[in-house]
Amino acid sequence: MAAYRLQKCCDEEAVFVVEGPKLAAEALASGFAVRTVCASADWLSAHADGTGAAEVFEVGPAELERLSAFKTPNQVWMLVERPSAFNIQPSLLTLALDRLQDPGNMGTIMRTADWFGVRRIVCSPDTVSCFNPKVVQASMGAVFRTQVDYVDLPQWLSACGVPVYGASLQGRPLGEVERPEGAAVLLIGNESRGIGPAAMARVSHPVLIPNRGGTAESLNASVAAGILMHWLV
Amino acid sequence: MAAYRLQKCCDEEAVFVVEGPKLAAEALASGFAVRTVCASADWLSAHADGTGAAEVFEVGPAELERLSAFKTPNQVWMLVERPSAFNIQPSLLTLALDRLQDPGNMGTIMRTADWFGVRRIVCSPDTVSCFNPKVVQASMGAVFRTQVDYVDLPQWLSACGVPVYGASLQGRPLGEVERPEGAAVLLIGNESRGIGPAAMARVSHPVLIPNRGGTAESLNASVAAGILMHWLV
Repeated sequence: MAAYRLQKCCDEEAVFVVEGPKLAAEALASGFAVRTVCASADWLSAHADGTGAAEVFEVGPAELERLSAFKTPNQVWMLVERPSAFNIQPSLLTLALDRLQDPGNMGTIMRTADWFGVRRIVCSPDTVSCFNPKVVQASMGAVFRTQVDYVDLPQWLSACGVPVYGASLQGRPLGEVERPEGAAVLLIGNESRGIGPAAMARVSHPVLIPNRGGTAESLNASVAAGILMHWLV
Repeated sequence: MAAYRLQKCCDEEAVFVVEGPKLAAEALASGFAVRTVCASADWLSAHADGTGAAEVFEVGPAELERLSAFKTPNQVWMLVERPSAFNIQPSLLTLALDRLQDPGNMGTIMRTADWFGVRRIVCSPDTVSCFNPKVVQASMGAVFRTQVDYVDLPQWLSACGVPVYGASLQGRPLGEVERPEGAAVLLIGNESRGIGPAAMARVSHPVLIPNRGGTAESLNASVAAGILMHWLV
């Protein structure tokens, strides 16, 4: 309940939570505006030259634990302002996500996109927020380098003007599908239901990662996204 | 604490926990011996022809919640006996895991191996147990189809007699490395520390998934394992 209330406030205030020294260092280096810092005395003295934050509070372990979304809170908790515009290097591949639900999958997909230089992700409105604390954590800093937009996905796909590769259990095996020559979109669907019919109707290249074992029902969404990004870029 | 005690009992009794109707159905179809079933009246009446379990208890939602490792317990909780011997179809590729810690990663890697027909996984003794409830859940049934052994990994790698491909940030880019012609081993290391020095000394083919973005520090272990399994099988 507390987590839900916090998320609601963050949405209204257009900020997001960043936790732990490693992600905090990425936040400070990112150029994103930091609004609030709650940190241990040790962390604050190591950052005595300032964080640029509007508010800074020294807090103890018990307060950090109350703030944190994680079992083992870690030295620093920040509120960072969501960017109104993003200055990204455009990449040939754009990722599209239809109704992805699991924060761990979302963050891992953002991390993988970051690895492969995919800088833009478009999502259906009911995809998990890229500013969910668990997404931010799993993204390993990709949240600071990736433009994520929530759009009417079927409409966006219709207008994008490039081949749309969609991961589907009814697709053609990867080895039989031609790779894109220029820009392309990779569409990944919901963890259990896959790509919805409206978005699927816009897929020009339905692809299947061959099921060589013949026993498993499906791949994890972030693993499938990783294999397909590696194949496409 | 309760979870820890339960895990300890399961280790001593050589059983593991299976939760939810989907995995329970896989357990019943697997041929593994089911020792204990705790289930809702609905689930039990749908399985009135018997489960072969030594003990069957009808339980209510509150009891299921106490038993479950998950936030939303689901109809049925089982104790299944760990197999003493495994009857698997040998695959050309064997997976080796060095000090993998995260249950979600372990389960996802087992699920991916199942998809690619990799039937055997050898692990260093300090790798997370394949019978951890979160591993079993994330494996999506692969636990019933995969032989997982915990061994002295450097020694096993020395004796295996086939090329060992190891995922390493110091490896050669995938495109420059030859694929195996026959049997091979794929070695995946710890989430933050990678492959340890003793195991790394046995790697004949250190490989790197090219970091095209140049910004991310690493890939998630289960995503890297998925990309490499797809490349190797």
